[in-house]
Amino acid sequence: MEIKTEIITIGDEILIGQIVDTNSAWMATELNQIGIAVYQITTVSDNKEHILKAINEAFSRVDIILVTGGLGPTRDDITKKAIAEYFHTKLVLNEEVFEAVKARLERRHIPVTDISRGQAMVPEGCRAFVNEWGTAPGMWFEKEGKVLVSMPGVPVEMKGLMRKYILPGLQQHFSLPVIEHRTILTYGTYEAHLAGLLEDFENAMPEKVKLAYLPSQGRVRLRLSGRGNSGEQLTQLLDRLEKELLAIVGEYVYGKGEETLEEVTGKLLKDNGKTVVTAESCTGGYIAHLITSIPGSSDYYIGSVIAYAYEAKIQELGVRPSTLEKYGAVSSQTVTEMATGVRNKFGADYAIAVSGIAGPGGGTPEKPVGTIWLALAGPEGVVTQKLQLPFGRIENITRTSYTAINMLRKALLQGN
Amino acid sequence: MEIKTEIITIGDEILIGQIVDTNSAWMATELNQIGIAVYQITTVSDNKEHILKAINEAFSRVDIILVTGGLGPTRDDITKKAIAEYFHTKLVLNEEVFEAVKARLERRHIPVTDISRGQAMVPEGCRAFVNEWGTAPGMWFEKEGKVLVSMPGVPVEMKGLMRKYILPGLQQHFSLPVIEHRTILTYGTYEAHLAGLLEDFENAMPEKVKLAYLPSQGRVRLRLSGRGNSGEQLTQLLDRLEKELLAIVGEYVYGKGEETLEEVTGKLLKDNGKTVVTAESCTGGYIAHLITSIPGSSDYYIGSVIAYAYEAKIQELGVRPSTLEKYGAVSSQTVTEMATGVRNKFGADYAIAVSGIAGPGGGTPEKPVGTIWLALAGPEGVVTQKLQLPFGRIENITRTSYTAINMLRKALLQGN
Repeated sequence: MEIKTEIITIGDEILIGQIVDTNSAWMATELNQIGIAVYQITTVSDNKEHILKAINEAFSRVDIILVTGGLGPTRDDITKKAIAEYFHTKLVLNEEVFEAVKARLERRHIPVTDISRGQAMVPEGCRAFVNEWGTAPGMWFEKEGKVLVSMPGVPVEMKGLMRKYILPGLQQHFSLPVIEHRTILTYGTYEAHLAGLLEDFENAMPEKVKLAYLPSQGRVRLRLSGRGNSGEQLTQLLDRLEKELLAIVGEYVYGKGEETLEEVTGKLLKDNGKTVVTAESCTGGYIAHLITSIPGSSDYYIGSVIAYAYEAKIQELGVRPSTLEKYGAVSSQTVTEMATGVRNKFGADYAIAVSGIAGPGGGTPEKPVGTIWLALAGPEGVVTQKLQLPFGRIENITRTSYTAINMLRKALLQGN
Repeated sequence: MEIKTEIITIGDEILIGQIVDTNSAWMATELNQIGIAVYQITTVSDNKEHILKAINEAFSRVDIILVTGGLGPTRDDITKKAIAEYFHTKLVLNEEVFEAVKARLERRHIPVTDISRGQAMVPEGCRAFVNEWGTAPGMWFEKEGKVLVSMPGVPVEMKGLMRKYILPGLQQHFSLPVIEHRTILTYGTYEAHLAGLLEDFENAMPEKVKLAYLPSQGRVRLRLSGRGNSGEQLTQLLDRLEKELLAIVGEYVYGKGEETLEEVTGKLLKDNGKTVVTAESCTGGYIAHLITSIPGSSDYYIGSVIAYAYEAKIQELGVRPSTLEKYGAVSSQTVTEMATGVRNKFGADYAIAVSGIAGPGGGTPEKPVGTIWLALAGPEGVVTQKLQLPFGRIENITRTSYTAINMLRKALLQGN
């Protein structure tokens, strides 16, 4: 039988729309990965009766209740009082938690007060987990085989407690089957195309393995999930399937797990001792921003010229006025000259150049909004590519920038 | 008595963590603005029994139930069946909705099928609202003075229906008091400082007006909300209070409503016929990206040089090697030369220059991570500013970029 969870989120700030609840989606993803389904998500106010009612109802529906929020030092600990009342117990000082809170505050030169002591008060009989990322502890309760866990709502604290204590604890408590995942990241194609290529592969897959397609912003993540009793056998099976999958769609694959395109490309540049520069028009610096968002990018990134105006393209990038006149700023010829110009200027191994019409204005019948030319200049010469994007301004800029970085990544892999 | 709402979100994709529910926060904000409180948010699966149970429970708690999701053409209309069952009625074809669906599909050259017809089937007795932004209609039900509304989960469709039909409908149905808001946007200070300056103002405010502080990423939004019976009197009162507030904290105010700093600054540049360029080191193009994210920015933005490497700062921006040697790349002297260099290069009215240590690496005891120098060169000369930021790499880049744009905005206002 499937183990079911309800997430109860406590917080007036969610109910007035001040913050978006991103915790629940993160928790749901992590729980699914260990084979636990989320049956319902309930958001209630910072009110004892309301919290108690939600806990009561949830216990009638599910096996696991994960409560987040309502534990801050200034919250008057309504959540803890509600939980203590639910379990017919009282709040007692947890010495281990109190020592940890005191040590944390002392490290930060913050005086220990009654409020800090209050943070270490937990319902009697619970298992308390020290919160290394904050002060409010995690709390674990059991009742008739079911489990209730209460955590603070600050994302970094919740995630820390979940990873270290709650997820492993739930796997153990419910003797869950072994589950293993492999996430393979693709760029430059769409879900239906990948699904077509992988049709035979999917049909031949053993039943205990599933393949999910997770598309977002031009990227499609492929997630293989296997479940079984023996971890070793499962690892071998997934190793084999991953290899088969890569043999089929490898040309679109840029990485694994949580890697980003700019991270993977940065690593390739670093490992190969190569440098990159950019000449940007319609992306307005966004490619440079993506490259430099990676720590340590100064090892391989030299600089950029952003040339919005015609004159800037001519003066700073050496684009010939005759090229602009004959072919226009949005053309294969112009981006070729931009890429060559910026590569020579900075003496880089690779240069990315982009010129296009991001919109909403500036389109013409021959070159409508979304027409973008990209060029990559490298040791072996220049390649160009045209995009015709259907999105709004910001999405056109983003997609173009990722496509450009993907061109560079492919060139680095081919060593040209 | 306060009118209470429950939002019921239907969707397996939320319960597996594939998407974050951003609809609820948007709805909560809008509802609060017309004086309706959100009491609870409940997310349930695409399952008829589960939906029915949630509706039943919600009706015992609140006056208004807003259901989103579970209405797509491929969803098998579980939501509609659940609602029809709840109201003991059956699904019937709504001609007005069907005509609108057909017209929409024909405009897009999509054949009209049984699925399209199914979209126009609604529970008998409901008020159906044509969805101009998609195909699934909005549906309004009443029972013992209470209201249930069902809408598709696609944000643009939900928002369109809410703005056009649901919010005005609820105001009318519940005879809500007139509510008016003024949002004043500040940058460059923090909540506690504003609250200190506004203490007397707040104490003198009439009871029917409230002031909320909404901080996010260096920006603090101040929202005045008044409620009353006469719209005209309320407008006059808020006009007066807004004027008083601006007289106290005006130096931090950059705009009103939903404006962004880059939008307001872009408008000032355009209105004054001025141009801007940037010379960026640690922000890596992000300032240029913010400026060029605004449609029509080619009217006032010429270009940028991003100079990560020392050599690029020397060659492309004309920074003197002796300046770099004596003061370092992160110094008032270097950013001054960067700003002057890039301003002359492009012949712009204003130039922004930034150099700093975004982190996580690169810090020294004298210049720890987060040390940033900014310069603004204009017709009247160069001003510089130092920041010492405590954030991670991305946040340091973001805050620096907004601070730079704010420097430019202030200079434009002062006409220098």
